[in-house]
Amino acid sequence: MNSHPAVAQKRLAQQASIPPAWRLPPDILANAPKDSLSTIRSCNILTPEELSWTETKDVSVLVSLLAKGEVSSEALTTAFCKRAAIAQQLNRCLTEVFFNRALSRARELDAHLKRTGELVGPLHGLPVSIKDRFDVEGVDSTVGWVGLINNPAQSSSSIVQTLESMGAVLYVKTNIPQSLMMSDSYNHVFGQSVNAFSHDLISGGSSGGEGALIASGGSILGIGTDIGGSIRIPANLQGLYSITPTTGRVPWDCSFMHQYYLVPPVAGPMARSLSSVESFMESLLGSQPWNIDPGCIPIPWRKELATPPSRKLKLGFVFDDGMVRPQPPVARALRETASKLAAAGHEVVEWDTSLHIPGTNLWTKAILADGGYHCKQLCDLVGEPLVEGMVVGSDKDLLSIQEREELEREKWSFQTNYLRQWLNSGIDALILPVLPWVGYKPKTWVTSKQWLGYTAIFNLLNYAAVTVPVAWADEGLDQPDEDWKSHVPRNPSDEFNHLQYDISLVKNMPICLQIVGGRFGEEKAVAVAKVLDEVIGNQSQNHSR
Amino acid sequence: MNSHPAVAQKRLAQQASIPPAWRLPPDILANAPKDSLSTIRSCNILTPEELSWTETKDVSVLVSLLAKGEVSSEALTTAFCKRAAIAQQLNRCLTEVFFNRALSRARELDAHLKRTGELVGPLHGLPVSIKDRFDVEGVDSTVGWVGLINNPAQSSSSIVQTLESMGAVLYVKTNIPQSLMMSDSYNHVFGQSVNAFSHDLISGGSSGGEGALIASGGSILGIGTDIGGSIRIPANLQGLYSITPTTGRVPWDCSFMHQYYLVPPVAGPMARSLSSVESFMESLLGSQPWNIDPGCIPIPWRKELATPPSRKLKLGFVFDDGMVRPQPPVARALRETASKLAAAGHEVVEWDTSLHIPGTNLWTKAILADGGYHCKQLCDLVGEPLVEGMVVGSDKDLLSIQEREELEREKWSFQTNYLRQWLNSGIDALILPVLPWVGYKPKTWVTSKQWLGYTAIFNLLNYAAVTVPVAWADEGLDQPDEDWKSHVPRNPSDEFNHLQYDISLVKNMPICLQIVGGRFGEEKAVAVAKVLDEVIGNQSQNHSR
Repeated sequence: MNSHPAVAQKRLAQQASIPPAWRLPPDILANAPKDSLSTIRSCNILTPEELSWTETKDVSVLVSLLAKGEVSSEALTTAFCKRAAIAQQLNRCLTEVFFNRALSRARELDAHLKRTGELVGPLHGLPVSIKDRFDVEGVDSTVGWVGLINNPAQSSSSIVQTLESMGAVLYVKTNIPQSLMMSDSYNHVFGQSVNAFSHDLISGGSSGGEGALIASGGSILGIGTDIGGSIRIPANLQGLYSITPTTGRVPWDCSFMHQYYLVPPVAGPMARSLSSVESFMESLLGSQPWNIDPGCIPIPWRKELATPPSRKLKLGFVFDDGMVRPQPPVARALRETASKLAAAGHEVVEWDTSLHIPGTNLWTKAILADGGYHCKQLCDLVGEPLVEGMVVGSDKDLLSIQEREELEREKWSFQTNYLRQWLNSGIDALILPVLPWVGYKPKTWVTSKQWLGYTAIFNLLNYAAVTVPVAWADEGLDQPDEDWKSHVPRNPSDEFNHLQYDISLVKNMPICLQIVGGRFGEEKAVAVAKVLDEVIGNQSQNHSR
Repeated sequence: MNSHPAVAQKRLAQQASIPPAWRLPPDILANAPKDSLSTIRSCNILTPEELSWTETKDVSVLVSLLAKGEVSSEALTTAFCKRAAIAQQLNRCLTEVFFNRALSRARELDAHLKRTGELVGPLHGLPVSIKDRFDVEGVDSTVGWVGLINNPAQSSSSIVQTLESMGAVLYVKTNIPQSLMMSDSYNHVFGQSVNAFSHDLISGGSSGGEGALIASGGSILGIGTDIGGSIRIPANLQGLYSITPTTGRVPWDCSFMHQYYLVPPVAGPMARSLSSVESFMESLLGSQPWNIDPGCIPIPWRKELATPPSRKLKLGFVFDDGMVRPQPPVARALRETASKLAAAGHEVVEWDTSLHIPGTNLWTKAILADGGYHCKQLCDLVGEPLVEGMVVGSDKDLLSIQEREELEREKWSFQTNYLRQWLNSGIDALILPVLPWVGYKPKTWVTSKQWLGYTAIFNLLNYAAVTVPVAWADEGLDQPDEDWKSHVPRNPSDEFNHLQYDISLVKNMPICLQIVGGRFGEEKAVAVAKVLDEVIGNQSQNHSR
C-alpha cells in the first residue's frame, strides 16, 4: 500500500507540516542512537528553556506557568511542536500534524488572557496530544486506514470539544495500528511507530504513538483509548502513568461507534507523572463533560477516595495468571514490589485467577463477534490488505443477534461472580503485570499467539486501572535462571512468550505494573498508586527518563 | 388460553394462597363499588389498626414504627398481605402471592431485632411489592407468559437481593401485560388488572398491577420498571408518585436481558407520597447496590440537589407536543399547574417539541428492532397467541446488526442535540403530561394507535422523571368546549384520542404530570416535585385518596 497515491500524498503532507528548521539533518538521523531522548536533547533544535519545559513531568507546573503568564501558550506550544516534530522523525509517533492551527489557537488564548485576565479553563494554553481515534473538525480521522485518507471530520469528538473547552491546545494526533486491535502501532498510512527508548522495539498499541510521543517529551499529557489494554500496554512499554477508566468517566463519542456494547472502549490520560493523570481527571470532571457528551456520568473526581487511607492496605497480587508466565524482569518487578509493600506494612495476598481464563475467553468472543465485518468494510474502500494476526474476527467468529444477547448474559453473570470474589477478598486493589513480556521487535506481536488476559479481562469487567512504572529490565538481574529455562510451556502463547525472552534485546526497558481499582475505582487505584510510587521511590527516580 | 391446564392450575394456586378469612364474601364481591378502597375499608377483614397502617402514605412512618419495635414486622406484613389479598379480589393486581414465606421472613426479622437490638437495614421489616418482571428465588417469573408457568427462578434478581439486604419483606409480585409492551395490564395467565379507583378502567402498564396495588393501599412501596412509560403511566392513572431513574441508579439485572441496549429499561419506586420515593432512593443508594449489581453506578442520593434552591425556578412546559393533543382534563391540569407555579414566582417557558417526534420515532424503531423475535419465542413455548396491537415488532421491523449500529449512532446524535437544547434553555426541569388521555376501558389501548411520545422519548434520552399527582378529571370543569369539539385530528393517534374522550367515563380519575430532570436528574426532578407539591397543595390534599 506504500505506493498508493493517497498514502504517498499523505506522507508528503505530513513531512511538509514540519518546518525545515525542525528537521534533523540527514547525518544525525542516520546515526541517531536507539533512544529518542539523546537525539532530542543534543540536536540543538530546542532552546534550553524549551527543553526544560518539555521535560517537565507534572502538568500542574506548566499550567501554573501559563496561568501566571510566566510563559505564553505560543512559546510552550512551539516547544512541544518542535519536540513532537523531532520525536516523529525518530520514532514515527504521529499521524496528523497541525502545528499552525495549534499556534494560532495558542495566540488566541494568550490574547484572551491578556485582554480579560481570565483563563479559558483549567488547561489554559497547554498543548495536549490525542490518539488518532478521535475526530478533530477539519482534520482527517484515518485511524490508519488508507481508504479514509482525505475525509476530514465534520465535527470534533466530545473529548476534543471538552479539551478545547478546558483551554487545551491540540497540535497532533498519534499513531495507531491498523484496526486498533493489536499491540504494535503499524499501519499502511503512517508506517511503523517504535519505542521512544529503543527504536528496535515496538511502542505498543493501540495507543502506541501516544506512548512514544509522551515518553519522548513531545507531549506532557495525551489521551489514549483502551478496549483490551491499548492505554496500558504502550504506557507499560514506555514507563508511563496512565488511567484506564470505567466507561462514562471520560468523554468518548467518535465516528467509530460499533463494538460499543459487549466490551466498551474507554478513553483515558497518559503522562510521565501520577499527579498529571490525576490532576487531569480532576479538572476534566470539574469541567462537567456530561454537559457535552450524553454518555458521561456526573461523578466528580472524588479526591477523598484518591487519598491513601491512614490504615494499611490489603492488596491482591497476580504473579502469574496460570496461562502465560511473566518473563524474568516482570516476575522480578512483581516480587520486589510485593516485598516493598509488605515491608511497608501492607498486606499482600495472592489473587485466585481461576476466573481470568474464562473471562478472557468471553472478551475474545465479544471482540471477534462482528466476524471482521468492520475491518473488511474499511479494507474494501481501496482494496487495502488486512494485517494478519490482529485480534480481528473472521466468518467463523460472527455472532448472530441472539448469540450476542446470550454472550451479554454470560458477561453479566461473569461480572457478578468476579464482583463477589472481589468483595469477599476485602482487597483495596489488585496489582498485576500489564504484559508477561518486556519488549518485541516490530511485527513480532502478530505472530505471538497473543494472550491479552492480563489486561483484557478488566475491559470486560469495566474496571478502572492505573499503570505505574516500577522497574527496568536489568541485564545483571534478569538472566534466565534454571527455573525459567526448565519451564515447560503450558500452551502456544506461553511457549512463544518463553522463547521470545532475550534480555540483551530488552535490557533497560521500563516495566509498569497495573493497579486495578474495580468499577469506578479510578480514585482508589490512584490512592494505591500513590502508595506504590512512594514505596518504589519513584519520586526520587526517573523511570520514564 | 384460559382453559390451558397450566393456567387453570396457576389461578387455582393463586386463589389458594389467600387464606379463607381474607376472602370477600360472594355477595360483597358481586356488589362491590367500582373503586377498591370503599370495599377494603368496609369489609371488616382488616382491623382498625391494620387499616391505619396500610393507609399510611409515608414509608418513613412505618419504618420508624418497626425500628422502635412499636409494631412488629409480622403484624405489619399480615396487614399488607390482607389488604393485598382483598385488592387482588377487586382489581386483579397480583401475580405471585407468597404470604407464608413473607410472614416467616417477618418473624425472623422480628426475632433478629429482639435478639440483637439491631436492624438488618433501612427497610427492616417493611413489606415491599415488586412487579412480576424480577426474579424471586423459588417463585415463578412468568412475566405473564403461559409457557413460563412452573419454572421457578433459580436465584433472585439484584433488586430483590438488594431489597432483602435492606430488610424488606417481599410478599407479592404484581401484574403486567403480556410482553410488557402495552399500557393495559392484561395477560393470559393472570387476566385483566383494573384501576383501583374505577374497575371500569385500566390500571395502565406495564407496571399496572403495581399501580393498582399501591393505590389500593395493598402496598406502601413498590418497584416498577419503565422502558417507554411503564412506571409513569400506571402512576399517572392511579395518582401516584414515582421515580423513573437513569440507567444504573437502581439495580436492574433479571432473566430478561434482551433489549438492554438501544433503549435501556430501568426500575424505580412507586408510592403514595414524594417522601416515600425519595427516602427509598436515599436508603437504596446508601446500601451501595453497586456491590450487588455490576450495572449500578456509585452515585449516592445527592440530597443537596434534591432540595429546592432558594432562587426561583425556570421550568419548561409542554402543553401539547404537536402530535396528540391532550384531553381537556390534562390540558386543564397543565394550565392550572403552570399558573400556580407562575403565581409563586417561577418562570414558565413553553418547550419547543420539534425534536419529540423524530425522537419518538427512533424509540419505536429501537423497540421493534427484534422483529418480535423474543415474544414469538415465548408464544411458541405453548402455542400462546400474541395480544394484537402491542408495541411488538414484526418481520418488517427487524433490524440487522449493522442497522442497529446505525440506529445507535442516530440515537447518540439525537441525545447530543437534545442535551444542547436543554442546556441552552437554562431550565431546571421539564414539566409535561404523562399521557394525553385520562382513562381507557380494558382492551381499548391496543386499538388506540398509541402515541407514547410524552413518555418514551425520555427513555431514549435516558432522562430521569418523577410523577406528581396534580388534579382529578372534573365533570364540571372538563366538559368538551368548542375548541375541543372543533379540533381537527392531526393523525390517526390524535383522532383516536379525540374520539375517546368521555368525561362521564373518566370523571374523578387522577391526573399526574411528569417532571423530567435530565440524565441522572433524579434529585433535580425531586426538588422540583417538592415545589410542585407545595404550589398544588398536595400536602393538604389527598390525590391518591
